[in-house]
Amino acid sequence: MTSVFATTTAAPLTEIAQHVRHSARYLATLSTETRNQALEAIAQALEAASVEILAANQADCQAAIAAQLPAALMARLKLDETKLQAAIAGIRDVARLPDPVGAVQIHRELDQGLVLTRLTCPLGVLGVIFEARPDAVMQISSLAIKSGNGLILKGGQEAVRSCEALVNAIRQGLAQTNIDPAVVQLLTTREETLALLQLDQYVDLIIPRGSNSFVRFVQDNTRIPVLGHADGICHLYVDEAADVQKAVAIAVDSKTQYPAACNAIETLLVHQAIASEFLLEAVVALQLRNVELRGDDRTREILNIAAATEADWSTEYTDLILAIKIVDHLDEAIEHINTYGSRHTEAIATENTQTAATFMAQVDAAGVFHNCSTRFADGFRYGFGAEVGISTQKMPPRGPVGLEGLITYKYQLVGKGQIVATYSGAKAKPFTHQDL
Amino acid sequence: MTSVFATTTAAPLTEIAQHVRHSARYLATLSTETRNQALEAIAQALEAASVEILAANQADCQAAIAAQLPAALMARLKLDETKLQAAIAGIRDVARLPDPVGAVQIHRELDQGLVLTRLTCPLGVLGVIFEARPDAVMQISSLAIKSGNGLILKGGQEAVRSCEALVNAIRQGLAQTNIDPAVVQLLTTREETLALLQLDQYVDLIIPRGSNSFVRFVQDNTRIPVLGHADGICHLYVDEAADVQKAVAIAVDSKTQYPAACNAIETLLVHQAIASEFLLEAVVALQLRNVELRGDDRTREILNIAAATEADWSTEYTDLILAIKIVDHLDEAIEHINTYGSRHTEAIATENTQTAATFMAQVDAAGVFHNCSTRFADGFRYGFGAEVGISTQKMPPRGPVGLEGLITYKYQLVGKGQIVATYSGAKAKPFTHQDL
Repeated sequence: MTSVFATTTAAPLTEIAQHVRHSARYLATLSTETRNQALEAIAQALEAASVEILAANQADCQAAIAAQLPAALMARLKLDETKLQAAIAGIRDVARLPDPVGAVQIHRELDQGLVLTRLTCPLGVLGVIFEARPDAVMQISSLAIKSGNGLILKGGQEAVRSCEALVNAIRQGLAQTNIDPAVVQLLTTREETLALLQLDQYVDLIIPRGSNSFVRFVQDNTRIPVLGHADGICHLYVDEAADVQKAVAIAVDSKTQYPAACNAIETLLVHQAIASEFLLEAVVALQLRNVELRGDDRTREILNIAAATEADWSTEYTDLILAIKIVDHLDEAIEHINTYGSRHTEAIATENTQTAATFMAQVDAAGVFHNCSTRFADGFRYGFGAEVGISTQKMPPRGPVGLEGLITYKYQLVGKGQIVATYSGAKAKPFTHQDL
Repeated sequence: MTSVFATTTAAPLTEIAQHVRHSARYLATLSTETRNQALEAIAQALEAASVEILAANQADCQAAIAAQLPAALMARLKLDETKLQAAIAGIRDVARLPDPVGAVQIHRELDQGLVLTRLTCPLGVLGVIFEARPDAVMQISSLAIKSGNGLILKGGQEAVRSCEALVNAIRQGLAQTNIDPAVVQLLTTREETLALLQLDQYVDLIIPRGSNSFVRFVQDNTRIPVLGHADGICHLYVDEAADVQKAVAIAVDSKTQYPAACNAIETLLVHQAIASEFLLEAVVALQLRNVELRGDDRTREILNIAAATEADWSTEYTDLILAIKIVDHLDEAIEHINTYGSRHTEAIATENTQTAATFMAQVDAAGVFHNCSTRFADGFRYGFGAEVGISTQKMPPRGPVGLEGLITYKYQLVGKGQIVATYSGAKAKPFTHQDL
């Protein structure tokens, strides 16, 4: 593979970050059309480089086999023709998404000839740290260019050849446009990850994609805002007024449809009045899917299952294990969720709309669901066209985050020489404050 | 003064915070009308308690005189009949503001009978730490109740009697409603400030109101999101195409209308082509207002003023001091601002709209102003009806923040038993994704 650009560089990280920031300043001023054309140029460059990319990935895979990497990691690392074509199609999908930049949120005359506009703009520079999956390079780069942001990528060491080939192609695509190819950078060493987290002067948002413990490590070691979540401890509360068939189907889907997902449930809370009826049906369906059940004392009076301990209420199993607790009333369920939940996604099964409304108002979570599976908590299922991450922080952006998570806004105020002294003191001129 | 509620308590802070959080859970479910009625009840209770409040403030002021507090602090501490009535009128103004809670931001059918709604909701519990001004208690409490949030206040020690009398009256007002008076809490010791910053499990937002160093201390000592800004290093760039009269007026207003404000300018950047003409006019106007000028070498070839050093470019004077630098072109001005500015408010004076557009697109700040004073950067002047703080962080909320800064949103998904398995795999049912 010949390369016109060095995708990794010996320059100090601070210099790299300054360069990205400077290039991103111009990227931020480009029109929607120009950014979308750049995405098409990237897609074409990736198509043109597909032989090199697949060869680089094969080399990574061979090294991974020699290093006896786990099968799950191998599956994520592998990039074949089909996966590559799908990722390239994904870039063209991103080009077709509405532009998140330049949207007018406030347009207001403060006084005649003094007009305030609040409009969306790129954050600046994104730092994205991810593990094995090399296809993430294509997805993240396209979202960054679409939203007008510079990008510093840090891929997993096991995917270094693939990532370098991909970033090289992406930069060759950008070289066909007015965008500085240096606006996308790739880091490859673990030391650089730590250094990246210190660059709060140059990096505006960190997106960590990896295990819970990795995300927590990132959150604890940077002053830069972090988009993501460490835990996903989600609950389904089966109310006394639940339709048992619906509740069983929702419980099974929420637990087993993809148990490793952050939006899978870990604990089932069941109202005591419906406990026997519901649990005797649910246990059959759940055990058919090989779900290991753990219950509190009252649950174990109904089901012959292992005991749940206090630790179970705070554990994200990411596996086919489900804790069960019987509660006396709605309020106890809400208290339990607000105490142990990670504010991700919480569901209630009930035919009582008033109970559902109370649950949805008082449960503190990004997603509060009524009579549907927690697994719907996802940017694509919500219709965002892309998912940048899922945030369990309280401040926006919260929950599944699409392109909206990569932008901010600024206030533009345009006048004709107005000064504040005119609008202050005893003879203050009043503001008009007319929305335009 | 007799009190039915203890406004300060010996209970551990964690218990207090848990209590506030629990009370806020119900506050969050109340209607707009109920919250506005509570504000009216608070206003009436403050009117009824005005004699006790003014007496408590007099006691604080006498203690402050005895302790020889600085005159500026004394002025902020003093609460007379006029200030109290104005603050009570302010509470009724807050009641008239649009409700920030319950606004529908997204309303979308994912499939028939599966409806997603994103709606605004309170953050939960606010922690507000402020210095001398006791009237802040009334303003902050009304904004918290309006936005459905619990509130933990920490006032300055010098205002402790005033704050206790005010919080006592506010709670007596709340006792006339269905809202638990414990939803507003007052802390009075410095040790409690430190403890408050550790309560990330119970407090969702910290708003520090005080000196730059205090805000920086708070930012460095908590995991809770902080709304505010440490520095306000703002610039005015006088372009070669500036109207000199306008530019001089804007420079004078931006520097002198209230030099201690965060949105006052600290540095004037002047295009070399207009430097002599502009500076010779500006110096007269600025020195008339007793502004001390410091210039770079090229400025000092035109004006006989002290030298500016590198440190001047990074200093917020909060005083009648202005640094001046001559630049060769727009790009140099933008680079200087993006390097030394605190991303607060930056202005350009020019009659060239293309130059202004470039400046506004490429300068990285919450506010980018064209031909008007930086002093307009303010929530009331923007027409928000209230200002919770000014944020210089990149992520929203950014710039002057109104009630919007005290809320977040949650996703509600309501179905009829839908599960994700239906929408997955080879026979996946497609989503409709129809906005409603």
